[in-house]
Amino acid sequence: MKILVNEARACVCKSPCVGIVPAVHVLILGGDGYLGWPTALRFSARGHDVAIVDNFARRYWHLQQSTDSLTPIASLEERISAWEEHSGRRIKAYIGSVDEGDFLDRVVAEVLPDVVIHYAEQPSAPFSMKSREHAVLTQRTNVIGTLNLMFAIREHVPDCHIVKLGTMGEYGTPNIDIEEGYIEIHHKGRSDVLPYPKLPGSLYHLSKVHDSHNLHFACRVWGLRATDLNQGVVYGIETDETSLDPRLVTRFDYDEVFGTALNRFCVQALVGHPITVYGEGGQTRGFLNIRDTLQCVEIAATHPAAAGEFRVFNQFTEQFSVLELAHLVQRCAQEVGLDATVRHYPNPRVEAEQHYYHAVNEKLLELGLEPHYLGDELIFSMLNVIRKYGDRVSLGQVEPKTRWRPGELGDEPEVPAPAETNGSGTRSGPDDDILGEEGVPGAAV
Amino acid sequence: MKILVNEARACVCKSPCVGIVPAVHVLILGGDGYLGWPTALRFSARGHDVAIVDNFARRYWHLQQSTDSLTPIASLEERISAWEEHSGRRIKAYIGSVDEGDFLDRVVAEVLPDVVIHYAEQPSAPFSMKSREHAVLTQRTNVIGTLNLMFAIREHVPDCHIVKLGTMGEYGTPNIDIEEGYIEIHHKGRSDVLPYPKLPGSLYHLSKVHDSHNLHFACRVWGLRATDLNQGVVYGIETDETSLDPRLVTRFDYDEVFGTALNRFCVQALVGHPITVYGEGGQTRGFLNIRDTLQCVEIAATHPAAAGEFRVFNQFTEQFSVLELAHLVQRCAQEVGLDATVRHYPNPRVEAEQHYYHAVNEKLLELGLEPHYLGDELIFSMLNVIRKYGDRVSLGQVEPKTRWRPGELGDEPEVPAPAETNGSGTRSGPDDDILGEEGVPGAAV
Repeated sequence: MKILVNEARACVCKSPCVGIVPAVHVLILGGDGYLGWPTALRFSARGHDVAIVDNFARRYWHLQQSTDSLTPIASLEERISAWEEHSGRRIKAYIGSVDEGDFLDRVVAEVLPDVVIHYAEQPSAPFSMKSREHAVLTQRTNVIGTLNLMFAIREHVPDCHIVKLGTMGEYGTPNIDIEEGYIEIHHKGRSDVLPYPKLPGSLYHLSKVHDSHNLHFACRVWGLRATDLNQGVVYGIETDETSLDPRLVTRFDYDEVFGTALNRFCVQALVGHPITVYGEGGQTRGFLNIRDTLQCVEIAATHPAAAGEFRVFNQFTEQFSVLELAHLVQRCAQEVGLDATVRHYPNPRVEAEQHYYHAVNEKLLELGLEPHYLGDELIFSMLNVIRKYGDRVSLGQVEPKTRWRPGELGDEPEVPAPAETNGSGTRSGPDDDILGEEGVPGAAV
Repeated sequence: MKILVNEARACVCKSPCVGIVPAVHVLILGGDGYLGWPTALRFSARGHDVAIVDNFARRYWHLQQSTDSLTPIASLEERISAWEEHSGRRIKAYIGSVDEGDFLDRVVAEVLPDVVIHYAEQPSAPFSMKSREHAVLTQRTNVIGTLNLMFAIREHVPDCHIVKLGTMGEYGTPNIDIEEGYIEIHHKGRSDVLPYPKLPGSLYHLSKVHDSHNLHFACRVWGLRATDLNQGVVYGIETDETSLDPRLVTRFDYDEVFGTALNRFCVQALVGHPITVYGEGGQTRGFLNIRDTLQCVEIAATHPAAAGEFRVFNQFTEQFSVLELAHLVQRCAQEVGLDATVRHYPNPRVEAEQHYYHAVNEKLLELGLEPHYLGDELIFSMLNVIRKYGDRVSLGQVEPKTRWRPGELGDEPEVPAPAETNGSGTRSGPDDDILGEEGVPGAAV
């Protein structure tokens, strides 16, 4: 494992460095995405040699569904050129799909990465539930892509650290505390520490469970080193690097397929659409700021797993119920003069709307994570940025459409009759939580 | 759920019927394989309308590796004709791959099965470990095939019972008792019943773990009904139906890729090849007779899971260590005048060779399974059948070749120097366990 301690180069960004950062070869799969692109900039800013892989799947899926990022995003070539202007550093791009094994093998052989950050997956739960074709595409892309990566790493750089984006959604909502990847089980007078049981809530989440099992095996049997980042739902638009230039801005999805809860709620509040809560809104999840995603990935990369170790971090900073988030956004929006309402929609998903939820998230904190907690200021700031692009919002993208049990809600109107809350938090009718894309946004194949 | 109680037709076979057997539409995926073909005959003999799907993947993979079944097997057309001659019943065959979604969808729409028995998977652990291409083929075939099945059932016959062949190898060798699919966990003052944690030992076993998670989801979220049969290692050649006519015989693999432990050991003893034990041979697994596989599948099919239920049965009748099996075969072979030896080979797999192992297998017994336990008579009988085909044995197929960590044993000779035991059970050198194909033989895509 090449750890070039003290060879860090000067940062071009203003954010605090996490300890001593070695200059290493970083390969970012899905480097054109919501999180992949800011991650590429961050590692480049830290002085690392950064290469990215992307096949523009996310951009293409948006074309297919006639949706788009709220933020206008530059082409990858423009992005890379803009970053070179600002930093003097060149990010190398490989255009192709990780589910093409020969392609990925050639990239890994050429880059010889010290660390791979793997975002290159279909990241949306609703997308995976649309049809058989969407489900198959999701599991094939994600599972085969990760398999290809395992073999390429084993072949060319067995000491390379794989940092893989998983999701807190792998765990589901068990009636016991959620631990970080493993749990000690006492049973019939014996005990063992075993992988934490999984109850994923969509065929997308299942693909992540499969990835986790496959990677665990690669570490156990081949001695690879990997960190599985079971990420919560990410919110936020800007990072230190993306805010340097409009050409560096990252994508920001608010549609029902690729948008995440808080991001969607802010857009909805701004354009006067009811904040969409699915069912009762008691669904509780872990959340984190996009800035903390970058911190966490950086912490994982600079504190690599041991050879043979499959390490699991639960990557979120706070737990919220969907209704809590909806009311937070509503209140902040009202404070800045917006007429924000909350509406409960019949839940298109199959999930518990009231449940026990307590997930442990200690390991990243122990390694130095300093969370940006969610507060009014962050919401005000997001609303401000979104306001800039308000004329790009297409209301048709906002309504929930994708159902976990197709046809079940078929007798009801596609858009339920309004039943809105008055802002006091008391319900006057059906709501809506949209977790939307789950926890691992920005990934592209 | 169509359960035509008391409409059973007369059996053409001599084996005892398991309770009242309704006549239903049975679709068998992988119906040309080691277990699939005898299963098709059994259900047809019971008076059911049987259709099978196969793409001859198993026959093709043997062509690719220049290996073959010990038993000469007829073409599928010859098999079906022979069965029609004996029984007056026609088995309908669909030639195609379950990983082709449109094909499988059409088959399900046409057959409208009451129960699907799903054997159509790449079933070999060593096969899955040969290369990236083999691993990808295994997981793509198995995971996508099962996904396609889930969607076809949901679309056309949501009440149909899916009987899926899993494997005991999904569990690995945890330090606690292995339960049937689920375990009650007490943790920090709370408790829940959750899926049993999995520690699969190959990329093939991982594909079965993925299938289990996907099917569990289909039951939880779509209300499908499924039984996951976590099968042990199957041994045996004949069933009541396959022994009626040489054209009805099922395949019997003894090569290092597709052969299972006891079957291989008997062939080795007969042709004077040392019985191949990997490492110490303390690897303990569940085993069962092919006749009991048919019993178990029949029991599962005639006692369907409830709507929304994902039921897991551990399908084996006895536990043995590999060395115990090797010595059993050695002793029986010597009793019939064969010069059988046991040899310990450097283990090409990555697995514990001494470990705790206690797996529960109560549910099938509770439903009426009457095991055929392993004894000397069965070994004598197998040796007798194998003797008929002794001139078909190719010694080149027997040696272990596929390594879990390629290259690691590269400095050693492909075939280690002999170090044989004298039959007393005391070790004089390295041994060899070959589990070979793991637990779910006969499957073809």
